[in-house]
Amino acid sequence: MVVYRTVTCGALRAEDVGKQVVLSGWVHRVRNLGAMVFVDLRDRYGITQIVFDLRFSPQDVYDLSKQLGSEYVITVEGEVVFRENPNHKIPTGRIEIFASKLRVLSEAKPLPFPVADETMDVHEETRLKYRYLDMRKGKIISNMIVRHQAMMATRSSLSEDGFTEITTPILSKSTPEGARDYLVPSRIHQGEFYALPQSPQMFKQILMVGGLDRYFQLATCFRDEDLRADRQPEFHQIDIEMSFGSKDDLFPIIERLVQRMFRVCRGVELPAPFKRLTHRECMERYGCDKPDLRFGMPLIEATDLARKTSAPFLSDAIAAQGIVKGLNFKKGSFLSRKEIDEYTSLVSQFGFKGLAWAKKTHEGLQGPLAKFIDLKEIPAWIERFEIQEGDIIFLLAGGRKRLLQALDQLRRRIAKDHGLIDENSYEPLWVIDFPLFAWNEEEKKIECEHNPFTSPHLEDINLIEKQPLEARSSSYDLAINGYEMASGAQRIHDGALQEKVFRLIGLTEEECRDRFGFFVEALQYGTPPHLGIALGFDRLIMILTGTDSIRDVVAFPKNQRAIDPMTEAPSGVTAEQLKELGIKTQTGES
Amino acid sequence: MVVYRTVTCGALRAEDVGKQVVLSGWVHRVRNLGAMVFVDLRDRYGITQIVFDLRFSPQDVYDLSKQLGSEYVITVEGEVVFRENPNHKIPTGRIEIFASKLRVLSEAKPLPFPVADETMDVHEETRLKYRYLDMRKGKIISNMIVRHQAMMATRSSLSEDGFTEITTPILSKSTPEGARDYLVPSRIHQGEFYALPQSPQMFKQILMVGGLDRYFQLATCFRDEDLRADRQPEFHQIDIEMSFGSKDDLFPIIERLVQRMFRVCRGVELPAPFKRLTHRECMERYGCDKPDLRFGMPLIEATDLARKTSAPFLSDAIAAQGIVKGLNFKKGSFLSRKEIDEYTSLVSQFGFKGLAWAKKTHEGLQGPLAKFIDLKEIPAWIERFEIQEGDIIFLLAGGRKRLLQALDQLRRRIAKDHGLIDENSYEPLWVIDFPLFAWNEEEKKIECEHNPFTSPHLEDINLIEKQPLEARSSSYDLAINGYEMASGAQRIHDGALQEKVFRLIGLTEEECRDRFGFFVEALQYGTPPHLGIALGFDRLIMILTGTDSIRDVVAFPKNQRAIDPMTEAPSGVTAEQLKELGIKTQTGES
Repeated sequence: MVVYRTVTCGALRAEDVGKQVVLSGWVHRVRNLGAMVFVDLRDRYGITQIVFDLRFSPQDVYDLSKQLGSEYVITVEGEVVFRENPNHKIPTGRIEIFASKLRVLSEAKPLPFPVADETMDVHEETRLKYRYLDMRKGKIISNMIVRHQAMMATRSSLSEDGFTEITTPILSKSTPEGARDYLVPSRIHQGEFYALPQSPQMFKQILMVGGLDRYFQLATCFRDEDLRADRQPEFHQIDIEMSFGSKDDLFPIIERLVQRMFRVCRGVELPAPFKRLTHRECMERYGCDKPDLRFGMPLIEATDLARKTSAPFLSDAIAAQGIVKGLNFKKGSFLSRKEIDEYTSLVSQFGFKGLAWAKKTHEGLQGPLAKFIDLKEIPAWIERFEIQEGDIIFLLAGGRKRLLQALDQLRRRIAKDHGLIDENSYEPLWVIDFPLFAWNEEEKKIECEHNPFTSPHLEDINLIEKQPLEARSSSYDLAINGYEMASGAQRIHDGALQEKVFRLIGLTEEECRDRFGFFVEALQYGTPPHLGIALGFDRLIMILTGTDSIRDVVAFPKNQRAIDPMTEAPSGVTAEQLKELGIKTQTGES
Repeated sequence: MVVYRTVTCGALRAEDVGKQVVLSGWVHRVRNLGAMVFVDLRDRYGITQIVFDLRFSPQDVYDLSKQLGSEYVITVEGEVVFRENPNHKIPTGRIEIFASKLRVLSEAKPLPFPVADETMDVHEETRLKYRYLDMRKGKIISNMIVRHQAMMATRSSLSEDGFTEITTPILSKSTPEGARDYLVPSRIHQGEFYALPQSPQMFKQILMVGGLDRYFQLATCFRDEDLRADRQPEFHQIDIEMSFGSKDDLFPIIERLVQRMFRVCRGVELPAPFKRLTHRECMERYGCDKPDLRFGMPLIEATDLARKTSAPFLSDAIAAQGIVKGLNFKKGSFLSRKEIDEYTSLVSQFGFKGLAWAKKTHEGLQGPLAKFIDLKEIPAWIERFEIQEGDIIFLLAGGRKRLLQALDQLRRRIAKDHGLIDENSYEPLWVIDFPLFAWNEEEKKIECEHNPFTSPHLEDINLIEKQPLEARSSSYDLAINGYEMASGAQRIHDGALQEKVFRLIGLTEEECRDRFGFFVEALQYGTPPHLGIALGFDRLIMILTGTDSIRDVVAFPKNQRAIDPMTEAPSGVTAEQLKELGIKTQTGES
């Protein structure tokens, strides 16, 4: 029996001195000092220094050590001794191994980029092509370990809350998410196709109809979209559905799950219950539905105050059904004209010609905005914006939608520019009661904000026909640090209400049958009230590992052209394969 | 806030009498006795009896209860009381609920088959179409819960042994398993295709090259094969790989994993270490490489004894390079001629004209075989076959391969017919040292028994060029109760040896580059010795739930024509979808 190791390269400490050990790993660095050869031996657990020297190494071992190259895989046997010059940067730094045996398990040809040099900047495409070499640098693997811990935490937490993990099919049918499907031609039924699931939405609702009661899955989902930096053709979500409950039952379950992940992966204890805001409140206060709460600086309503000013840009906007809002950058009066000009340029991207501002100095309120405010109105502004000496306020006037977008961006930008964000803090927020419908300006029709199975808010049932755009839904999002982390809803479980919603978004009975036929039928055999949520797992791991690229948290990612540079998938196939499937490519191959 | 339930339908016991409770669930059965209405209310946790009666139910509640139909979903509030006629068959059978409130959450239209009637035989296609109704019967859901427990046990066990779960891509590249791939056309790169993985084989080996050290995954795999009863287009395996180890490191890890599953899911403690047999021993003793060890009756070699008989059918077979083997069915002398004829007919399917047999009665060895054995040789036969009074032995002579197949079938058949198998016992067996190569009679060439990455047995390295068919590999299988449960191997980690194996199976350098190019290159940058295994997860759940259909252990299975009767996948797609993908179907659609 071959013994490759008695310990890993990260295990040995001062108390092991005197032991005879066997280690295996990669040659991280070799330093050949003539009489002595030093090798940093690496595995994923750490690095141990090995010394070859004729004082304790046999001649053949010593000679062989001179042949070692970077990334050779070797097995070494020897004695653990104290190191003359300890390296306090690594846990094994107080010891080294006097080698008595050496075996080369596998050689390495010259590398496309060095593994041991962390400073060298390697093009991402090259790192993806040689993903296995990039992995040896450690970061990807440590991200994978966090990912594994998060998967374990997810499963333990949900299992303890009575949820059963169900694997739903990958070879599936088109779902109503509305993005583009990946298709799989059927060989047995030529001309027909499976679709890779955009989510297990219908399957999980079917499981509720089937009485499973509490379902979850760490599900792989697929969307054939043009890729952005944070998208992959296949992505992963924690998919959850439960029966006989409301969001007040679901939220604590999700809070326990998220708390557990942060505890296990980051050692951070998130306080629960998480904050909640209605969609309406959230938009008013932060200008967006996924605000970053790691800093304050809420938006402040000032339309009423603005009416009393003499500023034409304010009164004009109000006259045109616009609103006036602003924010107070506390202690921000140090901003230079140049910085203020940059912020003005930022809001101009949303169509605003100017950004009004005022500072409070020991001489009182100053700046362009201040000139338009009556002296007697100044105390009201100071009270509303809680202006103190050293603060600067910004104000915009115009159409509500663009104004909220602009102020949201301005708020984030100021926070980023001036270090208002504690990168080690995490601020989850539930946003509830989203609108049920949205107006599709292009197609001039109503569409569902979430999906057609989302239940209206109980209080707004009567609105959905008369004033559909006013109706709220029973949907909710979880945002953390400015990112959408989860989205879900109470579902419609009443066939008549479901029909009504289908009609409102312009679906005929026939279209429903084609698209959701089996599903609508299933709802008619006794459906429990149910609700669910899906958490973006890759995005969560990005937050937990502090990276801003999804490719850092997926083992074998695709690049932005949906190619895996390592395997070179997708790739050509044989004419015989296409013939068996009964398909032709446009390029003419059979 | 709506309260759907304070307890589930499986929770209440005698000690809860007097409590006011809310329950929700499906109307399992209604019995309308005029003055009283009894409802069996069901959820996945159990059944609770509800009583409606004007003595304690308001008029409107009582009236509404008369309207209830099978599988309506309702919420009931009432008081827990002792039941006059306890039902000892169910855990809640000592109590019932006197209902004071009733709300119908969802009605049910007439069902395609009754949920409450367990005796009715429903066609499987119908059960698959209405999978959600079949689930309500309980068996599928209880199988899903076992599956969930087994997934949790797998992940806990392997995590504790230092393995990291890695999700490998589904949109992948053709792998060398050799079965037919499912293909996914690329929209962005027209004419190119992703393949759905037949296994994560190359990815997991790449992870070892990348230094992950210990990997696992509960992986979904895909094969576009014609389906058998126990196959699905997508199936699941526990996929494992580790570096710097041998099977003596791996086997205990797998044994702990399998033990944990059986402990958690069945309450059974499997003794470890599991038995081991070499492939050669196993074939000699049981005639197959996945023997059922729940009973004895090993095959017994008798070629030497047969030489000394006068039986022409024995000597002829030996002269033609055949062998003679048999088995002893202990206490089997009661077998009738008719039964023996049936066994003869069984072996005749493998080309044997007869099945020799002899019984031992109080008058000595009798039967056709006995007549050919010299009196003085009888003690040797009795000793070899350990024949006691009441036993019957069977003997076959002929070519080795067919003979082993026939005796394997005979052994299993006798055991099945005569109740030799304890259905509640589990007998795992490691079979090791399979042959490295097999002879492909059709194509007249050598091929790999396992896969081309399997390492030869260390002792047989020198055989692989001179006598390749004699060489053993470092591969292994785990069999339980006659089924192959897992298969794996030590991999080649030496580029030169890998090249040699490729040449032996007739692959040119160019073919290797096309099929495994990136993989062979990866092996050249320093590859650790590594080995792995894959356990058939669906099959394990079949054993753990005692079912013989894979469709009972998969939530949404395909039928034997690879169709999901519920969603009707695969299905037609729009011309626009095909156009976007740049493919045409043979039927002419764009």
